[in-house]
Amino acid sequence: MAGSPIIGEEAIIRDYFAGLAAGYPGAFDLKDDCAVVTPPPGFDLVVKTDPIRAGVHFLADDPADTIGWKALAVNVSDLIAKGATPHVYTMAVSFPALPERAWLEAFRDGLQAAQAAFGCHLIGGDTDKAPGPMSIAITALGLVPAGTMVRRGAARAGDTIYVSGTLGDAACGLRIAQGDIDAAAWPLDGRARTFLADRYRRPQPRVALAPVLRAHASASMDISDGLAKDLARMVTASGAGATVDLARLPLSDPARTAIGTDLARRALTWSGGDDYEVLCTVPVARAGDFERDAVRAGVRVTAIGRITAEAGLAYPGFEAAVAAHRPGWDHF
Amino acid sequence: MAGSPIIGEEAIIRDYFAGLAAGYPGAFDLKDDCAVVTPPPGFDLVVKTDPIRAGVHFLADDPADTIGWKALAVNVSDLIAKGATPHVYTMAVSFPALPERAWLEAFRDGLQAAQAAFGCHLIGGDTDKAPGPMSIAITALGLVPAGTMVRRGAARAGDTIYVSGTLGDAACGLRIAQGDIDAAAWPLDGRARTFLADRYRRPQPRVALAPVLRAHASASMDISDGLAKDLARMVTASGAGATVDLARLPLSDPARTAIGTDLARRALTWSGGDDYEVLCTVPVARAGDFERDAVRAGVRVTAIGRITAEAGLAYPGFEAAVAAHRPGWDHF
Repeated sequence: MAGSPIIGEEAIIRDYFAGLAAGYPGAFDLKDDCAVVTPPPGFDLVVKTDPIRAGVHFLADDPADTIGWKALAVNVSDLIAKGATPHVYTMAVSFPALPERAWLEAFRDGLQAAQAAFGCHLIGGDTDKAPGPMSIAITALGLVPAGTMVRRGAARAGDTIYVSGTLGDAACGLRIAQGDIDAAAWPLDGRARTFLADRYRRPQPRVALAPVLRAHASASMDISDGLAKDLARMVTASGAGATVDLARLPLSDPARTAIGTDLARRALTWSGGDDYEVLCTVPVARAGDFERDAVRAGVRVTAIGRITAEAGLAYPGFEAAVAAHRPGWDHF
Repeated sequence: MAGSPIIGEEAIIRDYFAGLAAGYPGAFDLKDDCAVVTPPPGFDLVVKTDPIRAGVHFLADDPADTIGWKALAVNVSDLIAKGATPHVYTMAVSFPALPERAWLEAFRDGLQAAQAAFGCHLIGGDTDKAPGPMSIAITALGLVPAGTMVRRGAARAGDTIYVSGTLGDAACGLRIAQGDIDAAAWPLDGRARTFLADRYRRPQPRVALAPVLRAHASASMDISDGLAKDLARMVTASGAGATVDLARLPLSDPARTAIGTDLARRALTWSGGDDYEVLCTVPVARAGDFERDAVRAGVRVTAIGRITAEAGLAYPGFEAAVAAHRPGWDHF
């Protein structure tokens, strides 16, 4: 990090963050104490708070633009999975030391790029200095037509289970970004390594999928702690179970190469976390329409199993592999 | 802190925080990934994010119920100053170590008491473990009739400046709570010491004042960083100035006794911070109605000066005293 340190919470807000609020009148250029949000008539607000911290959700030496991007993306990922259109967000940042100008500029640029990609605006926040890891706590507000938020717990027996994008990329990318010795030996070229590390640092919420989920999904949530753990949450909330064919999990070419025939690495695809893809269920009668509309929206979706009336998760052919590998992340 | 440690982010949310969401259907008992908020037709949402951290906004060994109370109160204080009625909030908590059950119960009880006092509900959040000071980041959403949020920057020359409650209590109380040697010598009995420490730990947003501010105030904000600094922000935003009679600042009896004739201590009343009282301006023609309605609402308000056309802050008779004492708090 080069450049001179800057002084003053108000200067940071004025010089770096106020521009992120310029597109939203109710943010008052971050010059008032609160923001005003007026949902259009007939719309609900969908609200999510998901903070990220250095050493847990990102690496302290990750490029600052990717830290800004990820801070917003992990929240937008939740909104999208609920069928909501991103609208506005607040941000509370805690720095362990005075940030450099160049770092703040890159951080701001990452947020700006994420805002533009997701279609939302900063409306307020707080900046302070505290010991410990850097943390960025964003609260994101999205819009859905009244009563149409897609719930986590409404999956029904027989529904088809889908995931968006590809799984396991971020978990592989984290190992590359950390300089993991095993990962250094993976038979990947520089481009493939960059792709996977970027999938860790720059999650891609499937913004175009939100209306498709509202139209067709019975239940939906995002995958942040690994497919196995998040699917367990969904079926528990739904009073149901699921059977999943782990051989059908969608993999990117770099992830497929990195994983090879190693079962521990393969387990990253269902337990690695940080995917920020959509996990949803669709009634069989709507599956064709769902797949067609997802294609039109430009989002890859893959059927990986079905919801069952019996509780519990079944992984035919992979029971021993799943049991051998920790199912997802818990902070405690 | 007594009792056994508890394990699991989901267990903490289920056992301690879900009850705080029970009164709000859109919170889904904290069992979904997002909450739904539907403002009544004709209302705006007013949004504020103001995190608190151990060692900065509270003391790590403060009673846990007061930490919960303060985390919500500092945000509600902003909403009230804008004329908004508290509605819902999200909360992201970061613990440096596994909390004990007794601590979490007290923390929850403090939040519950604050919710009941302020009339709002928890709708979502996040709990994790991270090194560094404990932090609680709340984002609060309030309601105002559309277009009626009271702005910071709309004070006009001639307007009367008011503050609610009493100033300086919390700054005196912090010194007592910290075991400050000077404070130990203040001629106060135990009851007065408890009163002042409680004013630091348990801010009292003037909820009943919100509609009075909407009806009569030209500008309003809360006092969190000391009157001098926050008034400077208000007049700067308003393109105006102010003259204030610091001899008229409202003091509680315990604060008056603690301060005595000591000018450095007296400066706490305009620069100590943590007051969480309302600073507002009222056109002279409305001042009588404002005072009458404040009395009816049960909130003490005191006229302390007036807005001037000339920029800058004038403190007749106290210029030297103000110059000698740092005007308020900055995190950097």
